[in-house]
Amino acid sequence: MSEPIDDATDGLPPVTVRTRAERINPARGNVADMQRLAREPQQFDRVLSSMCTEPHPAAREAAMRFLATNPGDPATYQEVATLEGRAVDALGEVAGLADPHGYVASGGTEANVQAVRAARNLARDADGRPGKTDSPAVVAPESVHFSFQKAADVLGVELRTVPLDDEFRADVEAVEAAVDDDTVLVVGVAGTTEYGRVDPIPALADVAHDNGALLHVDAAWGGFCLPFTDHDWSFAHADVDTMTIDPHKMGRAVVPAGGLLARDAATLDALAVDTPYLESTSQATLTGTRSGAGVAGAAAVLEELWPGGYREQFETSMADAEWLAAALAERGFDVVDPELPLVAARLSDDLFAELRAADWRISRTASGELRVVCMPHVTRETLRAFVADVDALA
Amino acid sequence: MSEPIDDATDGLPPVTVRTRAERINPARGNVADMQRLAREPQQFDRVLSSMCTEPHPAAREAAMRFLATNPGDPATYQEVATLEGRAVDALGEVAGLADPHGYVASGGTEANVQAVRAARNLARDADGRPGKTDSPAVVAPESVHFSFQKAADVLGVELRTVPLDDEFRADVEAVEAAVDDDTVLVVGVAGTTEYGRVDPIPALADVAHDNGALLHVDAAWGGFCLPFTDHDWSFAHADVDTMTIDPHKMGRAVVPAGGLLARDAATLDALAVDTPYLESTSQATLTGTRSGAGVAGAAAVLEELWPGGYREQFETSMADAEWLAAALAERGFDVVDPELPLVAARLSDDLFAELRAADWRISRTASGELRVVCMPHVTRETLRAFVADVDALA
Repeated sequence: MSEPIDDATDGLPPVTVRTRAERINPARGNVADMQRLAREPQQFDRVLSSMCTEPHPAAREAAMRFLATNPGDPATYQEVATLEGRAVDALGEVAGLADPHGYVASGGTEANVQAVRAARNLARDADGRPGKTDSPAVVAPESVHFSFQKAADVLGVELRTVPLDDEFRADVEAVEAAVDDDTVLVVGVAGTTEYGRVDPIPALADVAHDNGALLHVDAAWGGFCLPFTDHDWSFAHADVDTMTIDPHKMGRAVVPAGGLLARDAATLDALAVDTPYLESTSQATLTGTRSGAGVAGAAAVLEELWPGGYREQFETSMADAEWLAAALAERGFDVVDPELPLVAARLSDDLFAELRAADWRISRTASGELRVVCMPHVTRETLRAFVADVDALA
Repeated sequence: MSEPIDDATDGLPPVTVRTRAERINPARGNVADMQRLAREPQQFDRVLSSMCTEPHPAAREAAMRFLATNPGDPATYQEVATLEGRAVDALGEVAGLADPHGYVASGGTEANVQAVRAARNLARDADGRPGKTDSPAVVAPESVHFSFQKAADVLGVELRTVPLDDEFRADVEAVEAAVDDDTVLVVGVAGTTEYGRVDPIPALADVAHDNGALLHVDAAWGGFCLPFTDHDWSFAHADVDTMTIDPHKMGRAVVPAGGLLARDAATLDALAVDTPYLESTSQATLTGTRSGAGVAGAAAVLEELWPGGYREQFETSMADAEWLAAALAERGFDVVDPELPLVAARLSDDLFAELRAADWRISRTASGELRVVCMPHVTRETLRAFVADVDALA
């Protein structure tokens, strides 16, 4: 009664999830099963594939208190609106921007969509500005998250992806060759989804601005690691226009808490629509009603962990990633050297399938490599158990 | 140090919210103030303007347990994915659709944007289909929520709004006159934001389908009231293609829990993008990572309250709305007769401002009337206190 929804890599046993036909209506039966599900929280001890994690206690506690509020209606819910301002200021500090504009989004997808939308709207609305176009295009490395494909469909912009260099980073010359008068935005990734690599952000900013386009940095996952590295990735290192940096990933906030930051107020102005029936005049967010839990959780955990707690967490996670990479390399697997706490390694399809059957929640890169994201909930003990299973099943 | 952001109605004292400059960075001071805010939950006893409400205890409890999960990654977070399927089935039952397709969205805005996007994509992709166009248009009554303005900007579609009849409902003849070959979607509202009115959904469905367009019903707020009325509003009453129906409004779920329902699987297929690095192959949602709390809360409260609990709540809220309407009419104010639990009345600008100064969280229609939404947290006692303040301040 289940059908496969995973066939991303040919020849692998599919992951099965329940089809809609199996979701027995509570009114028609199987209430006990539903009640069991509602009682049992998600177990994280075998989740190695997610860029989400268990929230920090400070985030969880604040989220529970603000569960019923709506920062999308700031004149009614003033307390959470104040917390959002503080979260944005703190995010700006993480990202090297002293006077940030932005908001706590539903996640990295919304933040990326909104960055593309702002670039499109600014180019469209500014008569005579270089880059003004009726056929807006975004140039990005092949490593960009699939939310940019979503943005392209939603917003009606062309997404041009260009090849990577041999270190899995954006190839600046390829980006330069793809940029033209229709280009409204260049995207750089600071912590790629597959390999955790950091694109050459300052060089990409130069290419963008030399061609009348804006530069967006997707640091959705990497943003809470990179301050503790030598990478040039932030508003302080380059003339970055917008950035995605998500508290609900490495920031240990409660979902939903993505982050959109912009250097200029004009970016948010380009997103604003009028808001009748609210006692505020306009709304720049993609969604309307928003989660007060996400906003309050982000504000609380940023205050609690920035910077010392995040540094400690990064150092632990990075050491774990290096340990796992070494353990897999010792066993003869091809490993992509981790630059941030994310390990990719080539396992056989059979072994991957057996590990999933052993209930490890793991996933693959587009080219079929195992990827393990060393999020805060992934401990050394978990990784030892995983490697033990690799040994047992290989 | 505060600047007005509310000047929707000329001549009224503006509502002040803190500007970004006032959000003192936690690292730079005012930590005590932030900690106070993080400790104190939102008080609801004077919130009369919101379409959100205090969640039902069953929703709150389930939400807390699933706070860390991501239904956007169903192969990793299988438990919450199962709960989402059940929530969608239950929503289908509320909306008269036996075999529903859909998902728990971030809110009504996402659901409305996605309905427009699906209609646009289906028209674009289906060669030779009536309604196929490069200049897609949506026809909607003037009473549509501002999320359709947002959808128009985001998606690059033209929004044509047409006048209402003298009962504040869509004028079918005006809709018919505005529909043409470019029209991909007609929108009807079942429970308008300003006056709680229900458009003639069956007639609008006929107009849409006669012209090769789809029909979307926005029942974001009204959907949990209308099953207990005689209105023809649902999939059972008309050939509705898509619907917005939000658990986190009258459904008493936890934010974020909007609902998008579709009669045909093709609607969701038109929204899907490929998903590398996830062990599922495509994603039809607008956001990526999503709130497990919202999904689990919606599933739990739908099971708990549908249908008896929602009926009881509707009857209480409706009686309260009628009481308030009568009380205001008795005092000589012009009142718009409530059809659903929402009361609009013309107060002087001075009185409105004084009530806000007395900390009532109230808002206005586009034409300046007070609107009070009788959500589940709004009790008769609250309304008596409000009317007493009207008497004292008038």
